[in-house]
Amino acid sequence: MTIQNVCILGAGTLGSRVALQSAISGYQVNVYDITQKALDGSFETMKKILNQLQKANAITEDEAVASLSRILFTLDPEKAIANADLVNESVTEEPDIKKKVWKQFGALAPEKTILTTNTSYMLASMFAEDSGRPNKFCAFHFHDVFYSRVVDIMPHPGTDPELIPILEKFGRSINQVPVLVKKENHGYIFNSMLLALIGAAGKLLTNEVAEVEAIDKSWMVNFHMPMGPFGILDSIGLDTAWHVTHNRPDKASQAFAALLKGYIDQGKLGEKTGEGFYTYPKPRYKDPDFVI
Amino acid sequence: MTIQNVCILGAGTLGSRVALQSAISGYQVNVYDITQKALDGSFETMKKILNQLQKANAITEDEAVASLSRILFTLDPEKAIANADLVNESVTEEPDIKKKVWKQFGALAPEKTILTTNTSYMLASMFAEDSGRPNKFCAFHFHDVFYSRVVDIMPHPGTDPELIPILEKFGRSINQVPVLVKKENHGYIFNSMLLALIGAAGKLLTNEVAEVEAIDKSWMVNFHMPMGPFGILDSIGLDTAWHVTHNRPDKASQAFAALLKGYIDQGKLGEKTGEGFYTYPKPRYKDPDFVI
Repeated sequence: MTIQNVCILGAGTLGSRVALQSAISGYQVNVYDITQKALDGSFETMKKILNQLQKANAITEDEAVASLSRILFTLDPEKAIANADLVNESVTEEPDIKKKVWKQFGALAPEKTILTTNTSYMLASMFAEDSGRPNKFCAFHFHDVFYSRVVDIMPHPGTDPELIPILEKFGRSINQVPVLVKKENHGYIFNSMLLALIGAAGKLLTNEVAEVEAIDKSWMVNFHMPMGPFGILDSIGLDTAWHVTHNRPDKASQAFAALLKGYIDQGKLGEKTGEGFYTYPKPRYKDPDFVI
Repeated sequence: MTIQNVCILGAGTLGSRVALQSAISGYQVNVYDITQKALDGSFETMKKILNQLQKANAITEDEAVASLSRILFTLDPEKAIANADLVNESVTEEPDIKKKVWKQFGALAPEKTILTTNTSYMLASMFAEDSGRPNKFCAFHFHDVFYSRVVDIMPHPGTDPELIPILEKFGRSINQVPVLVKKENHGYIFNSMLLALIGAAGKLLTNEVAEVEAIDKSWMVNFHMPMGPFGILDSIGLDTAWHVTHNRPDKASQAFAALLKGYIDQGKLGEKTGEGFYTYPKPRYKDPDFVI
């Protein structure tokens, strides 16, 4: 089958990015959310990204205008999904909300539609049955679309294997690098490794082996990277990191979750609140003299 | 105190690099090893590196010649250490050999000498007493000097704190980025995090969640890095990774050590034997189409 029409459920940060990149790549895209405010915010996000892409000479102004013209924002579920070849859902990471969304849209979707969820920490098998057609259902997980271009294809045990090459081809067509996660795994591939790195950094800190800056410096200098684990944590959000960490039973995770909680209780959630392990907009690790 | 004369014990890969960078930075350097073959090999290594640095316009031919002229290669322990302000030891990672070396050179070293060990997986406290002056003894651990420029300063509980700023200053003077490891920790800072990353990658592979290439691709594309965990493993050597992994009690480490052992038994140790997870000199991950 050939994908032409894409439907994005949930017009948040990631949904907006997947929608925009799909439109840039020539697809017709319907973006659905439950409030006009969410849709307006999505449109603003897209304009900002298009501006940045134009400044970087990645697209022309004409292309930017044409891309936006291929996107329809709608509050109408039936209109959103009518004629969709592919749905990608990025609604709030709450199992009950995702289940409800999949019951609703599974019932509305045309026969042909491939149903995908963009969940970060849950599994496709949790919602596959709700959609009413588990064989057409697969996790299709983006990172941030523009800088981190990996898209995970993670089938659940009931996914029709024929979906995989279709999703690979579609992923490449929207400038992503598809990778296959053969078996369902919380954290897919990259997030599993990132969490291990962050956990090790957290352990060094809570065990008082080294300070935040020494830990980040070690990573940045040896790997020539623009940020280290605590800079990454600030960009992910300390609240998100706490959510992932605090239920892990091991002592190191518990100690790190407690440390994160201390920051969170002071309103220090990272870059988005202006402070986390570093202070923004000019964190120490971006100083040229940081790695000297 | 001002460091002028540096003594390097052990003319292997890392010792040669520390010696060369010290000489490039203007220090007088004595390089000691127990066989002429080792010293000759070290001289060859240095010439190769100087050639690469000249090609990269990092130094001129005159500077290269002057650097080599500041290095004395010797089999004579007394000559090697006479007048040394700083000793950095990089002999084989065997506790008994390191103990023996420190007994010998601790007795020979002038009063002023700062004694440092470059061990990767052991601790300064294991040899501090052997040196006869534990207060002058500290771990001073380099990565690869030219690409990865972090140098760990890791005092043991008996190290005189006054050594730390001296080692920081010396580290910066030879183009390294010093980081303080406040408490003794196997794996310092960077290696602890690298091992966590590699362990997570190994678990994804042994649990059959994803293939080697999908795992590496995920890391490379999302972080814009030139290699992923299995490429890194090939460059470290699968035998080294096995040594670090096989004694860890957890199930994931045991499964990964068993997988590494399978490669090792077939003579596949990574880049140095021409094959590991990839085949060299042209591993798949260096193909421009790998990350598509």
